[in-house]
Amino acid sequence: MWIETKTEMREPSRSQASFGRKVFDRLMLCTGDMDNLDKYIKDKSFVLQLAVWGLRGVARVILANNPLSGAVILAALYWASPWQGLLGTLGVLASTLTAVIIGQDSAEVAGGLHGFNGMLVSLLMGVFSSAGDWYWWLLVPVFLGSATSVFMFSGLTTLLDNWDLPAAVFPFNIIIVLYLLCTGTNNPYFPHNPAMPPGALEPNNTELIAVEVIRGIPLGVGQIYATGALGPSLLILGAVVLYSPLMGIHAVLGSAVGTLAGLSMAVRHESLYSGLSGFNGALGCMAVGGLFFTFSWRTFLFAIASAFLSAYSDIALSNLLGTVGLPACSWAATLTATLMLLLTGSLKEYRIPIGQVKAPERNLRTRSQWEAGNTEDRESTDV
Amino acid sequence: MWIETKTEMREPSRSQASFGRKVFDRLMLCTGDMDNLDKYIKDKSFVLQLAVWGLRGVARVILANNPLSGAVILAALYWASPWQGLLGTLGVLASTLTAVIIGQDSAEVAGGLHGFNGMLVSLLMGVFSSAGDWYWWLLVPVFLGSATSVFMFSGLTTLLDNWDLPAAVFPFNIIIVLYLLCTGTNNPYFPHNPAMPPGALEPNNTELIAVEVIRGIPLGVGQIYATGALGPSLLILGAVVLYSPLMGIHAVLGSAVGTLAGLSMAVRHESLYSGLSGFNGALGCMAVGGLFFTFSWRTFLFAIASAFLSAYSDIALSNLLGTVGLPACSWAATLTATLMLLLTGSLKEYRIPIGQVKAPERNLRTRSQWEAGNTEDRESTDV
Amino acid sequence: MWIETKTEMREPSRSQASFGRKVFDRLMLCTGDMDNLDKYIKDKSFVLQLAVWGLRGVARVILANNPLSGAVILAALYWASPWQGLLGTLGVLASTLTAVIIGQDSAEVAGGLHGFNGMLVSLLMGVFSSAGDWYWWLLVPVFLGSATSVFMFSGLTTLLDNWDLPAAVFPFNIIIVLYLLCTGTNNPYFPHNPAMPPGALEPNNTELIAVEVIRGIPLGVGQIYATGALGPSLLILGAVVLYSPLMGIHAVLGSAVGTLAGLSMAVRHESLYSGLSGFNGALGCMAVGGLFFTFSWRTFLFAIASAFLSAYSDIALSNLLGTVGLPACSWAATLTATLMLLLTGSLKEYRIPIGQVKAPERNLRTRSQWEAGNTEDRESTDV
Repeated sequence: MWIETKTEMREPSRSQASFGRKVFDRLMLCTGDMDNLDKYIKDKSFVLQLAVWGLRGVARVILANNPLSGAVILAALYWASPWQGLLGTLGVLASTLTAVIIGQDSAEVAGGLHGFNGMLVSLLMGVFSSAGDWYWWLLVPVFLGSATSVFMFSGLTTLLDNWDLPAAVFPFNIIIVLYLLCTGTNNPYFPHNPAMPPGALEPNNTELIAVEVIRGIPLGVGQIYATGALGPSLLILGAVVLYSPLMGIHAVLGSAVGTLAGLSMAVRHESLYSGLSGFNGALGCMAVGGLFFTFSWRTFLFAIASAFLSAYSDIALSNLLGTVGLPACSWAATLTATLMLLLTGSLKEYRIPIGQVKAPERNLRTRSQWEAGNTEDRESTDV
Repeated sequence: MWIETKTEMREPSRSQASFGRKVFDRLMLCTGDMDNLDKYIKDKSFVLQLAVWGLRGVARVILANNPLSGAVILAALYWASPWQGLLGTLGVLASTLTAVIIGQDSAEVAGGLHGFNGMLVSLLMGVFSSAGDWYWWLLVPVFLGSATSVFMFSGLTTLLDNWDLPAAVFPFNIIIVLYLLCTGTNNPYFPHNPAMPPGALEPNNTELIAVEVIRGIPLGVGQIYATGALGPSLLILGAVVLYSPLMGIHAVLGSAVGTLAGLSMAVRHESLYSGLSGFNGALGCMAVGGLFFTFSWRTFLFAIASAFLSAYSDIALSNLLGTVGLPACSWAATLTATLMLLLTGSLKEYRIPIGQVKAPERNLRTRSQWEAGNTEDRESTDV
Repeated sequence: MWIETKTEMREPSRSQASFGRKVFDRLMLCTGDMDNLDKYIKDKSFVLQLAVWGLRGVARVILANNPLSGAVILAALYWASPWQGLLGTLGVLASTLTAVIIGQDSAEVAGGLHGFNGMLVSLLMGVFSSAGDWYWWLLVPVFLGSATSVFMFSGLTTLLDNWDLPAAVFPFNIIIVLYLLCTGTNNPYFPHNPAMPPGALEPNNTELIAVEVIRGIPLGVGQIYATGALGPSLLILGAVVLYSPLMGIHAVLGSAVGTLAGLSMAVRHESLYSGLSGFNGALGCMAVGGLFFTFSWRTFLFAIASAFLSAYSDIALSNLLGTVGLPACSWAATLTATLMLLLTGSLKEYRIPIGQVKAPERNLRTRSQWEAGNTEDRESTDV
């Protein structure tokens, strides 16, 4: 909707417009949730279906639900590190297949809901491993951890369903913490590096470099996939914009808010430069601004609040878990988003039921239609 | 009811009685929940309303719901430390205003339910700050923390509503722990003192002074507002008695139980002297004895059990959180009271639904009327 | 069912068969849940009833519900250590009596549901105490802790009832952690030994002795009652087989899985030798394989998965809690079993509602009858 308006504003000549419109319509099919694809692949081979499910799972990590975004993100990961790309691929496949085997709801599997936790578990196992790249034994915990994430996702969904809350990335956060606790830093088979808390003192009093801090903002988007390189991070941001431009804006904004929160708490410089200060803010901002709530100026302010709360909670939790060498992963953003979903008052009016969450632009359209058409209905069902 | 009966027992002469009765009736209007005040201020200015809401919030910290008690407590806090008094005032106002802005239920706001967590957050931020009094930068986290407490309160209320449980002071406990973790002891902007666990060894083998231990019992009531001075603590106790004499008795009793528990576990002397051993016991005792359950001899025994459980859990949690320099605040009492509210069996029969909780004396009266009037009704709705 | 079939396969002569059948029927009355006993003791003295309730509570620790199994287990505990036997007896009695006093549901009390947490609390207090055997002051926390477990059990049951989940041994796990935190290692009245995390480094590079590791498998069953001696452990295993042979197999299997998990994570040798690596696996395996789910090949695979997840989580939690000297007790198995009970998909079809859980063999029979008889009914109630 948003892009469409922009295009129309340029007022092109008629023939150009009709051709441009056709191309544009084709392109539009590739944005948003790509629901049409599901019908198309319905009677195709299992391998193709699995690929689409997996790519949706890859995109779900960053709250997008678009296989093309997933493909772009996967390319970004292989670009950043082929080993990490491989681990991510295996993780998403292992957990999606586990979901099929233990008989999880097929609509959920097709939506990639059983893939993203497995992928995150695998990526983080790879990042924290101190055994170096291409350490093939790591595939054992990668497979087991990814498979376990399906169990966690299924169980937590039942638990949280009571309040119409999503299991989100709670499974990943639980499993990675358990894995790191299980192995410890000096495990003979699966050694890993301890996480450094952001509140740790700088080794020497170095000056803060402003350019590096600003560079950390797009890196914050990449850190959602545990990637600290600028190119892949920008590519990942592009994949988000492909799904929903509104979401892309929130991602950058949230990461900036997170960096600001980090500055106000004087965290380690490395934490700001690497984007680690920003990624919880980005996730917290994206979840509230447009995804789980219809976008509006009010929701926007709540999204900023959510970004700040996510970022500060992340510093707090990182300092706490850092005392035993553990990372706080995305606990802060997940808990904050859950809190926002539970909120009563003016935010609640914008809340979209979990089962009906689509791309922000589409949520917005559905709501306008809905409000225009049947205001009475809504009021009657409000009770 | 309770005071009234006592007065009648003195059997005064008729004219005295009628005058005394008038004065007494006026006084009685100032005790309990002061529901009449709400009607009176309904069409008054917003500032006056906000003041009443805020004062209710101040009193709610100690489970009272009476603006006069709130005023007395606020005076006690300014007496103990003007800076702490100011922080408390700002905290309760900031969170009440936030609740108004984000559109929380107006009846809840008017009842002071959105003020007490913000007040506690502010008071504890002030107490733990090592930057000294009148450090104006502290107002930034005070405002942000107080505002966040409204988000937490709203979200947790939705979560706990399932079991008809109150959000109580969970928001305060969560936020203060996150704040202290976020800043750390050597933060350049907001430094704070680490908490000392009660199980820490005494520096040298000093004798325990009995008088100081007994003095710690009333101080335990003051420690609910993070105040360690005797005068203000007694004034706070007076404010509780103004709301409900029964509650005042439970407060002192609970604090005594907490001190006893502390003695049995050989905690640090300072912990006993300062009243820190007593305040969780006091809160646990007050919540069960009269507030959330109709007062009776059975409830009384459960209140004692709740005080012991709160006090021992507090020692345990303080020792745990003390390993990372964090205080256990009122986690123990809040968790214990929540457990008691979930209990089945004989205690459940006395439970008052959260929406109908009033001053203990009034709960008692409502119940007698209810039991006298319609026993059949009760049995039929019991299913 | 299972034994019966085996017996029939031997095809004995007619007279022998009729006599054998009689003896066998008598014996069969002593296996499984022994529901008939309840009718028999209904109008007997309170002391006899209490004894039966207590013995059921003793057996409940290992998920069995059979007073004879309880008696055998108690004998095993007295054999291993008379002091531990005494503590266990007092614990189970104290909590069962507390449940009677605070008016808990009488069917629950008669089923031993209020005994097993108290027993575990007492046994573990004894095991961790560094004051030696026959330290009579320990009876104070034993009584208080056992009584508290009833409060926890009642409260948690209300909380978890929402999802038809059992409170299981959560009360024990919470109370023992609070107790150990409360007293600390150098408490003057109740000192205890700190727990050693399984990931701790070996003092010197010793060889792993295979026989000792295999010996650790049956010890894992004994460790459920905090017993590290072989004889008593085998007797406890016998008691489980008396209740349900299927459960006995799962216990040994789960313990073996736990040992395997321990080996794969290179835990301390002592952890493997003592059976501490195995007991969470055993509990996780027993809960899923037959007890809460009807036994089948599918459930069996889930039981193995549950054993692995319990065992790995136990290593993780033990390493985490070990940093503050605390044991992980049976947190891992309890959480894993809870997760399994929440699972959707193919496992859910085998789930038995908590109120209808019986011995695995009987669950199996009930299900066959149920499936044979009224398939339509089931489908209609499935909605």
